[in-house]
Amino acid sequence: MDLNAYLAVRRQEVDAALERFLPPADERPARLHAAMRYSLLAGGKRLRPILCLASAEAVGGQRPAALLPAVALECLHTYTLIHDDLPVMDNDDLRRGLPTCHKKFDEATALLAGDALLTLAFELLARGATPVTAEVTAQLVRELAEAAGSRGVVGGQAEDLAAEGCEPEAELLEFIHTNKTGKLLRAACRMGALTAGADALQLAALTTYAAKIGLAFQIADDVLNVTSTAQQLGKAVGSDAARKKMTYVALYGLATARAKATALITEAQAALAPLGARAEPLAALAEFTIKRSS
Amino acid sequence: MDLNAYLAVRRQEVDAALERFLPPADERPARLHAAMRYSLLAGGKRLRPILCLASAEAVGGQRPAALLPAVALECLHTYTLIHDDLPVMDNDDLRRGLPTCHKKFDEATALLAGDALLTLAFELLARGATPVTAEVTAQLVRELAEAAGSRGVVGGQAEDLAAEGCEPEAELLEFIHTNKTGKLLRAACRMGALTAGADALQLAALTTYAAKIGLAFQIADDVLNVTSTAQQLGKAVGSDAARKKMTYVALYGLATARAKATALITEAQAALAPLGARAEPLAALAEFTIKRSS
Repeated sequence: MDLNAYLAVRRQEVDAALERFLPPADERPARLHAAMRYSLLAGGKRLRPILCLASAEAVGGQRPAALLPAVALECLHTYTLIHDDLPVMDNDDLRRGLPTCHKKFDEATALLAGDALLTLAFELLARGATPVTAEVTAQLVRELAEAAGSRGVVGGQAEDLAAEGCEPEAELLEFIHTNKTGKLLRAACRMGALTAGADALQLAALTTYAAKIGLAFQIADDVLNVTSTAQQLGKAVGSDAARKKMTYVALYGLATARAKATALITEAQAALAPLGARAEPLAALAEFTIKRSS
Repeated sequence: MDLNAYLAVRRQEVDAALERFLPPADERPARLHAAMRYSLLAGGKRLRPILCLASAEAVGGQRPAALLPAVALECLHTYTLIHDDLPVMDNDDLRRGLPTCHKKFDEATALLAGDALLTLAFELLARGATPVTAEVTAQLVRELAEAAGSRGVVGGQAEDLAAEGCEPEAELLEFIHTNKTGKLLRAACRMGALTAGADALQLAALTTYAAKIGLAFQIADDVLNVTSTAQQLGKAVGSDAARKKMTYVALYGLATARAKATALITEAQAALAPLGARAEPLAALAEFTIKRSS
């Protein structure tokens, strides 16, 4: 299949939905709404929403039902980027090739824009969308909240900050990556599948797939931080080493990290077997997670 | 009725539930979980959860069904306090008589503890609780998200920050207070009523009640900021005037502000008429919102 064409079409669907579901920039409080739109519509791979849509497809579901969860996932992901970029956290000036939210606006606005996007993610899920039942809506909220909270993304970020400057340590690194990156990718796949009425076997297959690509994605991120240029990446490079971040590259070296990522992709693709041909986009997406340039 | 005895019993119920539903302080990431518990268990009036429980009672519902929403409301309220106290926002050192979260821990931990509590609020709602149906769960998520987002609490805080130093202006002041304070009190009453299967008339009565006490509460807050002591209030006093905050006292003077709060309480109590004797605790709570000392 032509993955680039597939990604382009899906990105367009996601971007159109984001535009539709975000408060207009001239609605009060205008500066806050402008900041939310700035960060959310600044581009990006839209990997999480596309995983959600492709997972719904993979179990034979209708994409429209997965569109609100897809948008919710991108709102949530963008909030984590805005807060992580703040001076008290990673203090980054550049994101997706543009000034970070607090550089473009101000710190207070960026903090609130993140809070509002996190909240909006749950609001969008709760709106429901034909043909998603209330039971599925409640499941979606639970999946996203569990993935995003102190036992998920926020917990991973907390340990990541605490680990700066510490000696690399395999078990801690896995905790950080599983939570900071892995759980939201996992939620993306599972939420898409849930909107499509996945059975237990299908859900288990997608959960395994997501765990493998989640880890591969993070290893690729660590590799890119060493090997890429700021222009390709749209954000600062070499920053991990400068900050003594705990990364796969720091722990295992570049060659071993790359080999591990490649092996994980093969395992992720194997996990899709029970889903048959409808999972072809997910198989292609798995490779994309490590072959991307940003 | 003996409101103080009623409040003490309800507070105990809420505090026990908070203790039960919060991640343990020794669970990784321990510092984050400790910060969440520190801010949430530091005391406080528990007004929002108690309004939720009392509203469920007022329409004849079982309190246990309203307990998770009650806890979710307090998680959400506490997150707003933690983020509002941060140096980039109101920069407060004292809250509920104790050092604010970022003073006790650090700014990054406080930011993440707020994010995690906001997320936990939705996780708790999505757990559901017998006998709340999935339909009601979805409604509860929507109520809370709409009240908390850019068209609610976060939006009110954004305009409040933007208005510092501006000339007091009635329409803007109303926007700020309706959103920053009013919408969450409104959600508290409505969420309690929804768990109890309120009909349209009951829900409308409680919505009117909540709007009135929300405004009265905020006026009382403005008055206390002028007339109270730091010891009584557990936080800095006189800070509104120092920061040139837009308040009811600044706009109308102390006497008019007090008279307006008293009138609103009478109106709130009148709105409860269709609910009969079961709404007695809510009627007493209305007076408490302006007669409190902190």
